[in-house]
Amino acid sequence: MPLISEHAKIGKHVKIGDNTKIYNNVIIGDNSIIGDNCIIGHPASGELHDMPLIIGKESLVRSHTILYEGSCFGDALQVGHQSLLREGIIAGKNLQVGSFNDLEGDCKIGDFVRFHSNVHVGRGSNIGNLVWLYPYVVLTNDPLPPSGLKEGVTLKDGVVVCTSSVILPNSTLEEGVFVAAMSRAGGHVPIGSLVIGAKGQIIGSIRKLNHKESKKHHPWMNHYSWAYPEEAQVMISKLKYKIETYLDHMEHEPCVS
Amino acid sequence: MPLISEHAKIGKHVKIGDNTKIYNNVIIGDNSIIGDNCIIGHPASGELHDMPLIIGKESLVRSHTILYEGSCFGDALQVGHQSLLREGIIAGKNLQVGSFNDLEGDCKIGDFVRFHSNVHVGRGSNIGNLVWLYPYVVLTNDPLPPSGLKEGVTLKDGVVVCTSSVILPNSTLEEGVFVAAMSRAGGHVPIGSLVIGAKGQIIGSIRKLNHKESKKHHPWMNHYSWAYPEEAQVMISKLKYKIETYLDHMEHEPCVS
Amino acid sequence: MPLISEHAKIGKHVKIGDNTKIYNNVIIGDNSIIGDNCIIGHPASGELHDMPLIIGKESLVRSHTILYEGSCFGDALQVGHQSLLREGIIAGKNLQVGSFNDLEGDCKIGDFVRFHSNVHVGRGSNIGNLVWLYPYVVLTNDPLPPSGLKEGVTLKDGVVVCTSSVILPNSTLEEGVFVAAMSRAGGHVPIGSLVIGAKGQIIGSIRKLNHKESKKHHPWMNHYSWAYPEEAQVMISKLKYKIETYLDHMEHEPCVS
Repeated sequence: MPLISEHAKIGKHVKIGDNTKIYNNVIIGDNSIIGDNCIIGHPASGELHDMPLIIGKESLVRSHTILYEGSCFGDALQVGHQSLLREGIIAGKNLQVGSFNDLEGDCKIGDFVRFHSNVHVGRGSNIGNLVWLYPYVVLTNDPLPPSGLKEGVTLKDGVVVCTSSVILPNSTLEEGVFVAAMSRAGGHVPIGSLVIGAKGQIIGSIRKLNHKESKKHHPWMNHYSWAYPEEAQVMISKLKYKIETYLDHMEHEPCVS
Repeated sequence: MPLISEHAKIGKHVKIGDNTKIYNNVIIGDNSIIGDNCIIGHPASGELHDMPLIIGKESLVRSHTILYEGSCFGDALQVGHQSLLREGIIAGKNLQVGSFNDLEGDCKIGDFVRFHSNVHVGRGSNIGNLVWLYPYVVLTNDPLPPSGLKEGVTLKDGVVVCTSSVILPNSTLEEGVFVAAMSRAGGHVPIGSLVIGAKGQIIGSIRKLNHKESKKHHPWMNHYSWAYPEEAQVMISKLKYKIETYLDHMEHEPCVS
Repeated sequence: MPLISEHAKIGKHVKIGDNTKIYNNVIIGDNSIIGDNCIIGHPASGELHDMPLIIGKESLVRSHTILYEGSCFGDALQVGHQSLLREGIIAGKNLQVGSFNDLEGDCKIGDFVRFHSNVHVGRGSNIGNLVWLYPYVVLTNDPLPPSGLKEGVTLKDGVVVCTSSVILPNSTLEEGVFVAAMSRAGGHVPIGSLVIGAKGQIIGSIRKLNHKESKKHHPWMNHYSWAYPEEAQVMISKLKYKIETYLDHMEHEPCVS
């Protein structure tokens, strides 16, 4: 009858909402907040059955959200309302997931990643640090549905995928790639490429994108690093340097045919 | 332990579902119904923290839905299941919102507006009267994600956006604009325009659209005003008159080059 | 106060989750599992008010899901989390519906049908056996929104609609049609057609699609029938035979102009 298992390991100063169920295997870090009507540590089937769910300290999981067992999230996780995060997710620190997300499990996610609402992450996805996914983005994995094959996508550090875009199975988007809204991107996309449209055309580099207020061009780390905590700044600087150096090199290289 | 705060102001003949939580600040009009497993008046952070949530009389909020504090809805609100309506929404009378909607807050919505399922309304949106949004429509607001800027869209009275379309940041769709399914509309779109495709092309006026049964052309007020309550009819007539007059004028104007 | 009506007819060895409500009219087959926080037999308005909800045996409905009264599901139904299945659905055996689905009701669904997450099925849809719908697929029904008309789509046996595609009102997709991701398909689409793009172009037959591992071409029954239970195999063989025969015929037919 108690909704919170006595075997769960719950840190200090953790608040747990009404009608929220917490299973045996769950470990929750200090100072975390879990909203109402959640299920934390929902049983998984298959290999990850009975594996722990670990949630780092200072985390916030909003109401009506379901986290399966067999996943591990770093500190300062934030999850919106009505989301589903299934088994086999290995995520770094300060992952922020919006509402109505569907993370199907079996994926890797780096540090300081941001998903807006209604993001769909297929199994087998491999997501770097500082990635941004916007509403109704789909990371697919089946090369020819229905096939039973799983070929997840790879999104390297700093990738941005705008709303309502689809990333095709087995693609690799290198660092800093920007995919415009309602595009269908696939294959291997080089560092700092700007992708647009249903055929996933690369129309140049992200330096074409200029921030309206500051007039600074992309990569977005040029004008938006302030939005991240102090501990992310070195990672952001290194990533920016890598992307800018690559783009400099590409621009100055003579055309070899 | 009681889920309904004794400080909430709840009207006469209001029904409240099982396991529904109602916070302090909430004011609910007479004869309203709130479904099961809802959270009404969920705390907001920021400026709207501790501001009231007002729900007009004769309203219906279906199960598993979350309404934040700091919003105000006119009479005869209807909300589907599993929806999220955040803080800072100022909505007129008889707003009808389907299931799985994500209204991110900080927006204005007129009277007699209709959202189907799974509509995403970004912060800063400004929505007129008698607007229709269909499933998986996204009203964006970030001109170049991620930028931290918020430039919401403006949809004037009688706009229709069909399923799976994206409205780009800072656009204005004037009265009666019709956006076809899976389009990406942006910029300033004149009264009664017909928009289609990923480039948001204007291919003429909505008079190209003919109602199959009645053979009447759009604007839709020509054949669908019967679906609205009596008190909406004057507003509908005036809007129809405005759009038709504008389209008449455009058709008869000699081409000036 | 009891959440489970004493008038509901609940089979043997049925497990029902915490905070799940079961209404009067509900009939649940043996050995089924209903998750937490569900509403089973939610009242419908209109003609189907007070009509029964029937769920076949060996079924699984995951947490936070809502099923209305006035629908009938065959054995071995599976539904994900946070889904909504409204009144008037007549579904065959072993329907598998993912999470966040929105089945608006008034539709027919055959046997062994598979919906991934976030599928939207409009009223009036007619779905055959062995159909596959992927995330954010929308089956529309209003020929010119908002019109009040309902012209649902017909998807014959073995149709596959990939992620983020829209099927336009009143279309018929014949057996084995494959719609690529982010397409907009409409009209009458012949057996075994391959459809792609926002204009719903037919670019040939599904034999153009080759399974990566087995090198077998589509229809998918050539390489994926193993994923279905034994009792589905005869149906699958017959469907494959029908599609292959049709495609053979089309390929060998001399061009008559």
